[in-house]
Formats: sequence, structure tokens, C-alpha cells
Amino acid sequence: MSDLGVKAKRDGQCIIVFKPSGKIIEVEQGTLLLDAARRAGVEVITPCGGFGRCGRCKVQVEMGEVARRQSAHLTQAEIDKGSALACMTVVKGDAIVYVEPKEKVKLAPPLETAAEKIALPIACEWQRNPRIRKYYLEVEPPTLADATNDLDRLRRELKLQHGVEKVSVSLPVVKNLATALRQDGWKVTTALEYDGDDQQARLIGVLSGDRSSTSWGVAVDIGTTTVVVYLVDLLTSKVVDAATAYNGQINAGDDVISRIIYSQRGDGLAQLQGMVVKTINDLLIELGGRNRVKLPEINEMVVAGNTTMTHLFLGINAKYIREEPYVPVTTHPPVVRAAELGVRINHEAGVYAFPSVGSYVGGDIVAGVLSSAMFQTDKLTLFIDVGTNGEIVLGSADWLMTCACSAGPAFEGAGVRDGMRAIPGAIEEIWINTESFEPTYRVMGNLPPQGICGSGLLSALAELFVSGVIDKGGRIRRELGTPRVRVGEHGAEYVVAWASETQDEHDIVLTEADINNLIRAKAAIYAGFSVLVNSVGLTMADVEQIYIAGGFGRHINIEKAIQIGLLPDMPWDRFKYLGNTSALGAYTALVCQDMRSVADEIAAKMTYLELSADNSFMNEYTSALFLPHTDMTAFPTVADLLENTREKLVLTRGSSVV
Amino acid sequence: MSDLGVKAKRDGQCIIVFKPSGKIIEVEQGTLLLDAARRAGVEVITPCGGFGRCGRCKVQVEMGEVARRQSAHLTQAEIDKGSALACMTVVKGDAIVYVEPKEKVKLAPPLETAAEKIALPIACEWQRNPRIRKYYLEVEPPTLADATNDLDRLRRELKLQHGVEKVSVSLPVVKNLATALRQDGWKVTTALEYDGDDQQARLIGVLSGDRSSTSWGVAVDIGTTTVVVYLVDLLTSKVVDAATAYNGQINAGDDVISRIIYSQRGDGLAQLQGMVVKTINDLLIELGGRNRVKLPEINEMVVAGNTTMTHLFLGINAKYIREEPYVPVTTHPPVVRAAELGVRINHEAGVYAFPSVGSYVGGDIVAGVLSSAMFQTDKLTLFIDVGTNGEIVLGSADWLMTCACSAGPAFEGAGVRDGMRAIPGAIEEIWINTESFEPTYRVMGNLPPQGICGSGLLSALAELFVSGVIDKGGRIRRELGTPRVRVGEHGAEYVVAWASETQDEHDIVLTEADINNLIRAKAAIYAGFSVLVNSVGLTMADVEQIYIAGGFGRHINIEKAIQIGLLPDMPWDRFKYLGNTSALGAYTALVCQDMRSVADEIAAKMTYLELSADNSFMNEYTSALFLPHTDMTAFPTVADLLENTREKLVLTRGSSVV
Repeated sequence: MSDLGVKAKRDGQCIIVFKPSGKIIEVEQGTLLLDAARRAGVEVITPCGGFGRCGRCKVQVEMGEVARRQSAHLTQAEIDKGSALACMTVVKGDAIVYVEPKEKVKLAPPLETAAEKIALPIACEWQRNPRIRKYYLEVEPPTLADATNDLDRLRRELKLQHGVEKVSVSLPVVKNLATALRQDGWKVTTALEYDGDDQQARLIGVLSGDRSSTSWGVAVDIGTTTVVVYLVDLLTSKVVDAATAYNGQINAGDDVISRIIYSQRGDGLAQLQGMVVKTINDLLIELGGRNRVKLPEINEMVVAGNTTMTHLFLGINAKYIREEPYVPVTTHPPVVRAAELGVRINHEAGVYAFPSVGSYVGGDIVAGVLSSAMFQTDKLTLFIDVGTNGEIVLGSADWLMTCACSAGPAFEGAGVRDGMRAIPGAIEEIWINTESFEPTYRVMGNLPPQGICGSGLLSALAELFVSGVIDKGGRIRRELGTPRVRVGEHGAEYVVAWASETQDEHDIVLTEADINNLIRAKAAIYAGFSVLVNSVGLTMADVEQIYIAGGFGRHINIEKAIQIGLLPDMPWDRFKYLGNTSALGAYTALVCQDMRSVADEIAAKMTYLELSADNSFMNEYTSALFLPHTDMTAFPTVADLLENTREKLVLTRGSSVV
Repeated sequence: MSDLGVKAKRDGQCIIVFKPSGKIIEVEQGTLLLDAARRAGVEVITPCGGFGRCGRCKVQVEMGEVARRQSAHLTQAEIDKGSALACMTVVKGDAIVYVEPKEKVKLAPPLETAAEKIALPIACEWQRNPRIRKYYLEVEPPTLADATNDLDRLRRELKLQHGVEKVSVSLPVVKNLATALRQDGWKVTTALEYDGDDQQARLIGVLSGDRSSTSWGVAVDIGTTTVVVYLVDLLTSKVVDAATAYNGQINAGDDVISRIIYSQRGDGLAQLQGMVVKTINDLLIELGGRNRVKLPEINEMVVAGNTTMTHLFLGINAKYIREEPYVPVTTHPPVVRAAELGVRINHEAGVYAFPSVGSYVGGDIVAGVLSSAMFQTDKLTLFIDVGTNGEIVLGSADWLMTCACSAGPAFEGAGVRDGMRAIPGAIEEIWINTESFEPTYRVMGNLPPQGICGSGLLSALAELFVSGVIDKGGRIRRELGTPRVRVGEHGAEYVVAWASETQDEHDIVLTEADINNLIRAKAAIYAGFSVLVNSVGLTMADVEQIYIAGGFGRHINIEKAIQIGLLPDMPWDRFKYLGNTSALGAYTALVCQDMRSVADEIAAKMTYLELSADNSFMNEYTSALFLPHTDMTAFPTVADLLENTREKLVLTRGSSVV
């Protein structure tokens, strides 16, 4: 490997070249390829946390010797082509390894729009009652005759000029006070944080000169997968800009459970905290640069996330979230200062995290209920946020019930052979011809397809069912006589796209195992609805409106979702897509401090139902393991559709498979 | 006295037995006791050369008849008990005389004693109202049916078992909560910090198991030179141990001004903070080890120091303390958490620093006034703390005036050729024979001398003056005809110790320049007294008591201090040495939280007089630049002494130099 052109290596050392970055590292023989990559600064995604469970850390060994552990995630053909799982492969000698560059996240749609649409849920004088207020002061310099100390001098002016009677202060502000006061001739702008009392404030910043014409805050949605940061002008309550990125923790596992497992290893908790803080800081830097906002002038942050994300962001032990009886350390974390977390805004800026209900109904859902205003409505409302977990809230102004279903990540593209995230190259919608069983699909970004994302999977499942490719139990009908249906290495499968159509020349398929995963996921969610509704002595028909939240929700096709029995069979106008309600809730609490006590009230009001402790759940789940459901009377429009399709098929080809 | 078992004595002879040595001698009736002792080989120290001036040759006549000459150094009570000055007493018959063996350097009194002596200045139920309370709790473990989160579970028990309604908490405690609760089967000890409200507390620590039988706090005196840490049992309010060390900042300058200059260079401020924090941490480790106290179980710290020391300890910019108009950043620093400073006790322990009055009257003086209780007395009291700076407080329960004199470090041994700190090897007291001008001295640690410390300088100045080696202007009389007086490289000087007697074989001298430095220092302090007293329309004679504080104060010989005009000429019983009042004040505020608001009241009550802005100061200072003072009528006992000494000299050698 002398052609690598690096310095003479030591004995027992291997030189690994990573493509396409060209990064080179020397490591000991026997080093895990994943570790080598990390040390070289090459990012390899490891959603399962590096346990060989997910197969996502697949890399291409283009040259050189490695030793692979066996994995179900690699076919012999792939191995022959050089594929290896970075987390299950050690280096044996010099090697050249190709690592697929990390997917870039598409920007969310412009958030100005989203923010403009937010109707603050209850009457509040938020434009006149911000938590942060900035005051410009011209301070009289001290003299021998009036040698009052700097802090009391400032306090005196705040009282005289703005009627603030009591100003508390913490050490970091005091440390910098003398310089700030003198830098621009005793002209300063103070940032004060109020907590409901007009006469009492906390001094969180003193900047020289007049900086009172702007006031910045940020609202952050920390998702397990994606982090979104809104930059908000606190003077106008306008969202000025937003930025989004994958949660940096994604390399430590795809779901909250693998994150918690990761957090228990060595300094895993600190690492995870560092990862998400880095993600947020990177987004802040991006926003700051784009909008010419100095980060130390951002004086407040509101965060919404699920309970695990909130724990990890704050560095709180998350271990017991995962162990029965599933107890978080706290549902109401204290307000902390940005510096405690390493968030690079004003060190003294308060960071408020939304309260949660329990281990599996977190601050993101409380924020969602807040921003949806369902806690004020007279109508019986079902609120769902489908992600890796499906969180469900049922109720109205009178009461709120909630539960969480371990749907699993199937609808996020994980646990499905050709599943992928909703990024360019993903098949996002599929239609199957009922006669020919030939599919048509739409790909995000109009590219050749790479895989199928959540909404694609949902529509595929519905189409496969309605067209009769699969039966109501999810079994692929092998007898259809179409090349699209075949029995491959992984059992029966339906070919969505032939290799020749795809980006990386492999058949994109849905296997029976994939289909079963999807059915289990939808069954868990629907069973959650049923148990919740039944637990209060109502029926699904009593539900007057259904709010759909979350990133996945945006792409849900209601019709298809009903067809597979993911959503209850109701008139479509009862469904309302709300967008990222977690982020909207965070924004709401940022611009209107009264919302914090409202969030507390909501969290207190929500009765949590632990499904694993509920006797009826398993029954409901089993009943929902069919398409659309065992009880077809609950899905009248689907029954009609199937009847019509059958009739039509009888008419056109004299046969029926439905 | 035949029962003494000695040989038959001759007529007119007296047998004197010296204890505890048991030495016996026969002398003529009328022999000076001092001579008898010398002849018996019993050492009696006579620093003043046997003129009855110093009172150091005090012995105890346990039996037998003697004749005493009158002396100001003996009270009637002492005479009644048998005390006598060996140089002023003749034997009249057989006697048994006890002579104190030569003194060993006395250690500072054990601090337990000091603490026991502290009378809390105002009525407060401190034993029942500590700021820190520890509660042992047995918490019901969570179940699926009661999956309340850890923090609320703990709060619930605190309310049920101890009636604490509101418990606030900060992130570091939350981070560790899950582990602490589970480590010993849901048995924990909580440390709560109260701030005056019994229903509201801050949770600052959760330790597994029952740790409620101890509760630790520390009181710290941060001196410019020395740091003292007291370890206090908050359950009993007892000082369990104390440790002291040089302030690690000493390498960055001897006085506050050089420290401030140092703090302005690069990261000098952070360095200085690190130095003093390390000093404190080292002392804590020493105390923890000796008393088997784990440092994280120390839950509170109270600190008293001058304004500069407080700024530097907290890392606050001290630059403007030094620049006119001498403004500190704050006189009332916020309570900070130990972790913010790097102090290695419980991270969440509150660190309270005493409030100061201004740049040059700091928290140490407020703590001193607090612990001295002068703010409650009816008597007009003068409080002085002489160190590098002399801080003076005048007043009573009605009012308090204060000023600071830049005495300079002369009395700390700096700015004096052979000056040194009060450590072993320092000459701490000097007597000069009025006839021979030969000195006697006492060295700390009974070692050969290295230099002269503050108390030694003070007594040297007084002795040089009273014995006539120098005149009232501080000029050395070159015409005395003793080898002790000479004109050296640095001008006229008096040799205190010949090279052969010293540790490093150099003559230890006092130069005329040294003497002038000392006179300027004492003049600054005395002028401070005068200006303060005059500023309220009183005279020095109105002062009813004088409290002396500080480490130097311990060694001040009141008599000598009056002789040089450092202290006003008053009956000695008006002077009271209070010890390290800064540390005592810190201790007081540690064991009794009510004292914090009292300290605020004291600081607010103290009117600061800036001497550099006072017109009369220069006059007073100039008048005080003589020994003891220009106005001899203000020093009647010194005038008498000089008169008596002159008379005696005329009697003994027919001449006078006074």
C-alpha cells in the first residue's frame, strides 16, 4: 500500500483511507472499522448504537483486508461486492473504505408561515408581557462624592428610569459588569428576565451601548430524529428564521431505547448531551450568521421534546425511563442557565423545558396539546403524534387521557428492508393497478428511487391490500401470476421497483416480514385509540375531531391510513393536520410566558394510561392485527371500497381476489 | 525555715528557694530579688534592663517576706496574690519564689475555645433555625400503579414527613437523583437550604442512606496574607477544627494593590481566583482528612474578606477598586454555588460572602462589627483592624462611621529592611536597656533571629524612643557612644542583633528610614482615629472602649502602642482584643442565618469617610508624625513615663538623654 503515499507506518498498524473524503488514519490491527472512521472524523451512522442490529452502518471496503462478523443485514452478494457493517468489522491490514456521505436534511417548509398561522390558544397579553425586557440606560458615572458600587448604581437607574424595584443577579453578570458599564461611557442595555412580577426581575445581561431595538429568543423542538430551532424576535413575536438538522445523537441509536442504553455506558450520558447540544449550537450558528444575530444576544430558550430527549439534553439519568415501572427522574425540570448546558447563547439565558406527563408522554406532547388548544375545546378530540412511538391524547376542556404505544420505527422506515427516511430518493407514495398489480410511485426530489419512506410504506400497504396483493392478514398471495410477486432470499416479497429503475441498482421490495412489521405498528396505534376511548366508556364514533401532529403526520394520506386501519374510519373533515405542534408549543411558551403555567396545568390534567398494565390492550391489539381490522363494522367505508373493487373486478375480468 | 532542710543560715541572711527548679541561695536581707535569682542561676527575663519599665520580670512570691516598689505593672489584686517584679523587689527574709520558666512560643489558642467564647450578638434561635437542615427519608419505591417521578416522589415525602411545602431544585441535584434514591433501597438523606421561610426550601443534596447525624458547614476568613477555614458542626454550632495557610495569591503580590495590578494582566484574574480557591481546597482537604468528613457533605460556606479579596475570590473585576473614585463592582455579591467557584464541597452548597461598605472597608470589617456586637452597644466604641490597611469603625448602636487608612505594610514587616512576617525566626518583642542601650529580644519559635515582625517593630520603636536612642522625630541619636548605633550603608541605624546571633549571619538593624516608615504608618492610623472622632464633633477622650481586631492585633502590646502614639492614651482596661473578628463573623453568620440581614443592616448603617477627600486628614497626619504625637497633652502617661525615666537616669548615672 505504499501508493497511499503516507509516512512509513509502524508494525501492527494499518492505514485506512476513507473515501470520498480522502481522510486517512493509522490504527492498530484489530480496530473496529467504526472506531477507525470516528477517529478519522468520518461520520458513519449507527442508528442501533453500534450493536449490529440495524445494518445501517454499511460501508464499502474497496480494497484491503477486513474481518466481518456474521450479520443478517448482509447478503453474500453484498459481501462479495465488499459491503461490510462498520460496527461488526475489524481491520486486518491497510484498506480503502467508501463511506456514503451523510444525507443532508431537507429544510422544513419556511417557518414564517407556520408561525404566522399560530393562534395563541388563550387570551394573553403576550405582546405586552414578555419574559425578557430590555432597557437602555444612561448611567451617571461615579465620583468621590457618590462612590456607589457599579451594581447598586445600575439598580438605582433601573428603579428610577423603569420602576424595577428588585433586581436579582447572578455571578456571571456581576463578573462582566464593570467592563460593560465603562465600555461605552456608562451607556448600557440591560436584559431583564421577569417571572410574573413587574417589580421583580433577574438581570441576565448587560451590554454596552444601546441594544434595545432587538430582543431575541429561540424555540427548539428536540425530536429523537430531528432538531428544529426557531429564531424569534421577542419584540414582535415573529419567527424570523428556522433551521433544522438531524439530532446528533442519531449515531448513538435510532430510538429512545437505544439512546438510553447508550447513555448507560461509561460517559455515554455526557456524550449524548454533548451531541444534541452541538446540534443545537450548529443550528444557532447557522441562524445567527444568516440573520446577523450575535448569539450572546439571545436571551431565552424554550425546548420541547419527549421525556428521554429532555433528560438527555439536560444530562439527567434516563435509565429508569426504560425499566419498569418506567419512572422519569422528573417531569418538571428546573429552568437552567444556558451555560450549564453549553448552549452558546447568553450564558445567563434561561432554558425552559416543557413539562412531561410521564416517561412516554413527554414535553413534546404537552406542547402539542397546548398549541392545539384541545385543552380548551368542547369537542371530544383525539390528538395523535405518530413517530417511533405513537402518543395519543383523548379529551377536551373537561379532561384529558393519554397513552403511548410502542409502535416501533416501521413507519419511519426502520425495521423495513428498503425503508428509509423521508429524504430525496424516497418513494413517498405508491399506487398499484388492481388488475395488473403493476405499481406507480412518486419519489421525493424526482430522483430514481433508493427506498421507501413512511408515507410510501403506508400507501404501499393500503394499495397492496385494496388491490388484493395481500390478504387481510398481510400474507402475500403467491398465486397472482405477476413477476412483481416472488419468493426471494427473505421470503415472499413484492417488487416495488426493479433494479434498473433505482439509484443503486437493487430491486426495491416489500417483504412479508416488512408488511407484518407495518401491520404490528398500525395495530399498536389503533389499539391505543380503542383502549383510551373505551377506558372512559365512549366509542370511537363519539370522537368529534382528530388532530394529527408530527413530521410523519404531514405526509399521512388520511384515506390510505383509514384503509389499513391506522386511523379510525371517520369523515375526512374531522381530521386536521397541525404540523410540528411540539415546536409550535415551544414557540408559544417563548412569546407568552403565561403559557408555562398553562403547560403545567395541562400536564397535571393529563391522566396517563400505561398500556402494558391495561388488560384490554392485548385484545384490542390482536383485533387490530388485520387489515383494516377484525371488526369490519368499524370501517364501513373500507368495507364499501372492498365490495366495490370486488364488483368491479368481477365485471372487468370475471374474477376476484379480494 | 529549718524545715527547708538546708544548712544553718547566717545572721541577716535569707534563704530563697526558687521553684520550679528547686535552686536555693542564701543572700543578704535587702538583696534585689532579681540579683538573688541571677546568682542562683535562675533566669529571669528583664527586657528593659531592670528599670521596672516592662513588667516582664514578674515572679510569684509563694511564701516569705519581700518589699515591693510601686509599679504600674502590678495591680493590687496581683500583689495580694504574691506577684512581684524581680527588679523592683528586695528580700526581707526567707522566701519561696516561683519563676515562670522561659516561655515557649505560645500557640494560638485552640479554636474550639475561641468559638465557645463567641457570644452571638443578638438574640437568635440559631440552634433551632439553621439554614441547612437534613432530613432522613424512607421513600416508597414506585410501581406501575404509582409511577410518580423521582423528584415529585421525594417532594411528596418531604411534605408528608417534614411539612416542607415547596422544594426548589437545580439541575445538578436532579442529575444525580435517580442513583441516590436507588443506591440504598430508597433510603436517602436530603440536605435542604432554607432562606427564612419554613415552608420553602432549596434541595441542595440527596445522599443515599441515613446521613442525618452530621451536618457540616465552613466559615472562611480570606485575608490578604492568610486564609483560615473553620469546620463547623451545624447541629451543635461547634467549631470542630480549623486550619490556616498563606493565601496562595501571596506570590502575586503582598498587598491588595499589587493583586489588583496582577489581576489586570491576561488571565490574571482567573489565576488569582484559582490560587485562593486552591488554598481553600487544600485546607478543606486537610480538615476533611483530619476529621473524617467527606467534602461533598459540607453544605454551606460563609466567607469574610476585604473587598478586593472578595472580588478576586468570586472572579469579579477588581480594577476599579484601585482607580479613583474607588468603586467596587458590588458590595453585596450574590450567593453563589460552590461549583461555580471550584470550591470542592457539595457542588450545590451556597457560598455567602459578607457584604462590604466600599472598596476599602470590606466584608471582613462588617463581619468584625457583627461579631464584636459594637453595633448594639451604648458605649462609644472604636474598632480597629490593623493590617496592611488600617480599617477603623467608630460608633455605637446609634450610628457607625468608618474609614480606611493606607497605613502601608510597615507593621506587617514589609517596607522595612529587616522586616518579616510573624513566623518562627521573627523577633517579636524587643527591650532596650536604658543605660547600656543593649537590646534583649524574644524570637518566635526560640530560634536564632531572621528579622523583625510587626509586633517586634512596634516594641522596637517604643523602646528606641523611651530609652532615648531616637528622638521624638524618629532621628537616631548618633552621639550615644554605643556600637549599637552606627551610620551604615543605608544611613543611621540601630543594630538589634549582631550577625553572629542570627540565623543567616547578617546584622539585623533598624534604619532611620525604617523608623520613618513605621512612624508614617502609625501616624496614618492615629490620624484616622482623630478624623473620625472629630468628624462627629467628639474628642478621643469620649471613646469609651477600643476593640482591637485582626492577627496583628493579637500581638500588639498596648503599652508600647500608646508609647509610640499608634493607639490613643487611655486606661488599658478600655482596650479589648477580640481576635480574628472576620472569621468569627463568618462563623456567626454560618450558625445563625438571621445574621445575614444583620450584616446587611450593619453595612448600610456604616457611613464611609473617604480620608483622601477629607481636608482635616493631612493636618492630623502631620501632627501624628511625632513620637508619640505633637500634642503631648493627649499622651499624659507617656509624658509621665519619659519624666520618670529621666529622673531615674539622673539618679543612677547623673545624666539624661531623654
